[in-house]
Amino acid sequence: MTTTATLLLSCADQKGLVAEVSRFIYENDGNIIHADQHTDLEESVFVQRIEWELDGFDIDRERIADEFAPIAQRFSMDWRLRFSDERARIAVLVSKQAHCMYDLLARWRMGELATDISLVISNHDDLAQVADDFGVPFHHLPITPDTRNAQESAVRDLIDRHDIDVIVLARYMQILSPEFVAAYPNRIINIHHSFLPAFAGARPYHQAHERGVKVIGATAHFVTGELDAGPIIAQDVSHVSHRDSVPDLIHKGRDLEKAVLARAVHLHLDNRLIVYGNKTVVFD
Amino acid sequence: MTTTATLLLSCADQKGLVAEVSRFIYENDGNIIHADQHTDLEESVFVQRIEWELDGFDIDRERIADEFAPIAQRFSMDWRLRFSDERARIAVLVSKQAHCMYDLLARWRMGELATDISLVISNHDDLAQVADDFGVPFHHLPITPDTRNAQESAVRDLIDRHDIDVIVLARYMQILSPEFVAAYPNRIINIHHSFLPAFAGARPYHQAHERGVKVIGATAHFVTGELDAGPIIAQDVSHVSHRDSVPDLIHKGRDLEKAVLARAVHLHLDNRLIVYGNKTVVFD
Amino acid sequence: MTTTATLLLSCADQKGLVAEVSRFIYENDGNIIHADQHTDLEESVFVQRIEWELDGFDIDRERIADEFAPIAQRFSMDWRLRFSDERARIAVLVSKQAHCMYDLLARWRMGELATDISLVISNHDDLAQVADDFGVPFHHLPITPDTRNAQESAVRDLIDRHDIDVIVLARYMQILSPEFVAAYPNRIINIHHSFLPAFAGARPYHQAHERGVKVIGATAHFVTGELDAGPIIAQDVSHVSHRDSVPDLIHKGRDLEKAVLARAVHLHLDNRLIVYGNKTVVFD
Amino acid sequence: MTTTATLLLSCADQKGLVAEVSRFIYENDGNIIHADQHTDLEESVFVQRIEWELDGFDIDRERIADEFAPIAQRFSMDWRLRFSDERARIAVLVSKQAHCMYDLLARWRMGELATDISLVISNHDDLAQVADDFGVPFHHLPITPDTRNAQESAVRDLIDRHDIDVIVLARYMQILSPEFVAAYPNRIINIHHSFLPAFAGARPYHQAHERGVKVIGATAHFVTGELDAGPIIAQDVSHVSHRDSVPDLIHKGRDLEKAVLARAVHLHLDNRLIVYGNKTVVFD
Repeated sequence: MTTTATLLLSCADQKGLVAEVSRFIYENDGNIIHADQHTDLEESVFVQRIEWELDGFDIDRERIADEFAPIAQRFSMDWRLRFSDERARIAVLVSKQAHCMYDLLARWRMGELATDISLVISNHDDLAQVADDFGVPFHHLPITPDTRNAQESAVRDLIDRHDIDVIVLARYMQILSPEFVAAYPNRIINIHHSFLPAFAGARPYHQAHERGVKVIGATAHFVTGELDAGPIIAQDVSHVSHRDSVPDLIHKGRDLEKAVLARAVHLHLDNRLIVYGNKTVVFD
Repeated sequence: MTTTATLLLSCADQKGLVAEVSRFIYENDGNIIHADQHTDLEESVFVQRIEWELDGFDIDRERIADEFAPIAQRFSMDWRLRFSDERARIAVLVSKQAHCMYDLLARWRMGELATDISLVISNHDDLAQVADDFGVPFHHLPITPDTRNAQESAVRDLIDRHDIDVIVLARYMQILSPEFVAAYPNRIINIHHSFLPAFAGARPYHQAHERGVKVIGATAHFVTGELDAGPIIAQDVSHVSHRDSVPDLIHKGRDLEKAVLARAVHLHLDNRLIVYGNKTVVFD
Repeated sequence: MTTTATLLLSCADQKGLVAEVSRFIYENDGNIIHADQHTDLEESVFVQRIEWELDGFDIDRERIADEFAPIAQRFSMDWRLRFSDERARIAVLVSKQAHCMYDLLARWRMGELATDISLVISNHDDLAQVADDFGVPFHHLPITPDTRNAQESAVRDLIDRHDIDVIVLARYMQILSPEFVAAYPNRIINIHHSFLPAFAGARPYHQAHERGVKVIGATAHFVTGELDAGPIIAQDVSHVSHRDSVPDLIHKGRDLEKAVLARAVHLHLDNRLIVYGNKTVVFD
Repeated sequence: MTTTATLLLSCADQKGLVAEVSRFIYENDGNIIHADQHTDLEESVFVQRIEWELDGFDIDRERIADEFAPIAQRFSMDWRLRFSDERARIAVLVSKQAHCMYDLLARWRMGELATDISLVISNHDDLAQVADDFGVPFHHLPITPDTRNAQESAVRDLIDRHDIDVIVLARYMQILSPEFVAAYPNRIINIHHSFLPAFAGARPYHQAHERGVKVIGATAHFVTGELDAGPIIAQDVSHVSHRDSVPDLIHKGRDLEKAVLARAVHLHLDNRLIVYGNKTVVFD
């Protein structure tokens, strides 16, 4: 596999966008291996993901951003440039439930996720041994009503000190403050154990059982200031029946949660997500 | 296929239920071909569906209910007895959208549904020709703010006069009055174009698009006094993406609606549904 | 909705393809509303679908093909140009089973398929009435061992005389001759009632039941000279259990067949399919 | 949770089976909490799973089998009696791929599987560290063309010495000898990385890519003398597209394999499987 550059961009829709971006790459002798774009006709928004090989590209990787900047400016683009050999640094936040954490750690150790899992942070110490088994530093930062602010500061310190790119709430079960959320826009991924917007908030499997639904779901989303209302990245569901008690729903739901969260993290690390408004474009 | 009898029963859970019901059938030389039961341990409710061949059964079909009644009384059962050669009579209520109606009519004509579709009732006349093509009487009963009550009375007249067993709201788009609903308990099946409880009420595909969900769904449920909150019979979902505009969601959703509604109607006609509390047990 | 032009093209992968095609549209003042491409790195094949508004485009629609031809020639492209207001003409071939035919006819009548269903051809006369109910000419061309060739000639005559674009085998149950197939490359769509390549050939639901599978499926594919082996357009599956007898599988399968075939026809009519090698690229 | 007894039985269909088994439990004051049965009308086979609470049951658990034996004999039943507090002993066989092994070990450590994973056996030593991290003994038994028989003997020694109940082939990639298979009937569970019977044998994802399928699947089955042809326990599929290269299929397939294998193991440990002929009845 050769190293690639990936441009993710969004802007007001206008003529010439595709032509101009592809011309930039072609004239510098780049070989495009993936390109995907979408026009939201209703909102008149254009989003694009374009990936090309660095090998043989005329512009040095350090200078690509500078060279592209005038085009971006002309079209008033929001844009990011990423390279396939960059490895994001992840912090995993958990409470007591281990399944999402186990799944992420195992994927990381098998090389499925192009990332470094730098640390695990929890408000409980139940999962310290699991982190230790996988050789990942574990930080136990308990929460009491009086220490909520101090605990969040400590979490933020750890995240900033370790230069974390992505914060994964792997069933963290705590509501982050607006300040915390604002500090990491589109960088906090949460897994909620329902097909949102149904059953937001606490105990979604109990709510689902009470309502007698025939499907349960899981939703991975970016965290925003409004609880369980951020841009949705991935969702999936399983069929259930009257035979499924609340513990059965919890058991079946765990498999959904693991798969949906891992998929969202994978898409984010692979630079396949663009957020605009309260929606996520997934280039898969 | 031989004719069969089917017992559907629910009661407080207690010892000896399975033994007593199966003894009743066995001692009268009945051959059980399907039996399924469920105990809701939390609510302490027992529900059962048991189906046996009439051929060779010692009790005449007219007298089975009388003979079983003492057992039912002893255990304080809610129960129904049905025979496989009974054909339910259906009224289909529609507004302007034809897809669910077409689907039901085609299934009926192909013999997929063991039923008679006796009439179609609509508050618009758009689908009169479709009903006519299938040879089903069509009743146009328009609604204005002033005539809402009178129109409902006319609908009820038609239903009662035609001795209708099951009322299918195939995208009827009208909210029935509490009196109407109360008159046909567990006999009105509605299709709602979302995975309830998400996006109850009006324009669910617009709501889904606005929220940026990655799955859409459809829900068939019995109608109760509370809007879109009755016992759920069947649900299914489809994956969607940022590429799907509201018209795309509507288009994809139509296939879900057709399949989910047909499945619910089929389960009901096949005597596979028991409602208790606000939940539906589906013996499939 | 404005009228659009859609280019579908495939060629050996090479630098400058995206840039050149988008430049052609941009320099003629076209507004691209969808563009999607794919590079098969293994086979070194590039495929693209690009759709733009005719409104405001500098080249008259009659002259677009001529103007684009030099670019196509330079890159040795296979290509097609389509306009969104063109309506394909469809022939539906059936035997005795009605479900796929009903589904296609209903979609056509509801305006879901941008097409004209010009005629229905069958080797049996069972479905003549259904076609008649929908106002579509029905041609009964029976087959005996002695008349197979003559019957096929008669089918081809009808297809050619009615200027048919797409031939849909809606459970036709007859194997077409190599000559027939060769005459309509990538223009014959078949629905096979299994998830191919499992259970090719006759009686797939019986095969599935015998094998004890836990999922059944349906496959829509372009017909080629090799039975059930052409490029796959769409597939879907349903879960089944030990409770499902062969008739149950047939019943459940019908819903899959309808949905998968309709999806394939819709994708084809919407100019979203490109075939290369024995594979289908689906731009959805 | 109270301790329960579970009877799993199959026999030729005959009148009085349900009545007699339920009478046995009722007359001894047992409280049935789950009962499910199925009659295969075609093969005239009756299968049943019935579970009741030991608490309050008149017969001591050691004597239940003896007391039930006369009934079983009268109806010529195949039957097993299990108690919910028995923990099966599992051996996991792997080669080089870790995902199914990680998944099973994590589930076991989280208490999801009511079992003891007694040992891991592999023909390679790649996964020794993973087993060690989870505190499970790892046995490296390499295979060369000359040592195949000796290696299998060593595996069987380990299995017999550790009194293993269930052998899980978690991507073991080796074909077991007929003698090995015959020694553990319905006790060896394999995961095959396709929706069988499609793509049996080697490199199913390569076969799937070559064929251009739009779904991939995974199948868990009991191992029999015929390769990939044993009774199917569980299957699931994922949708794929032309964008998915072979490595993408492998990546997506891993999630299917993990989930389907875990589901099969869970069903087996929970005494929910009955095999007859070449089929598996799943009481879920």
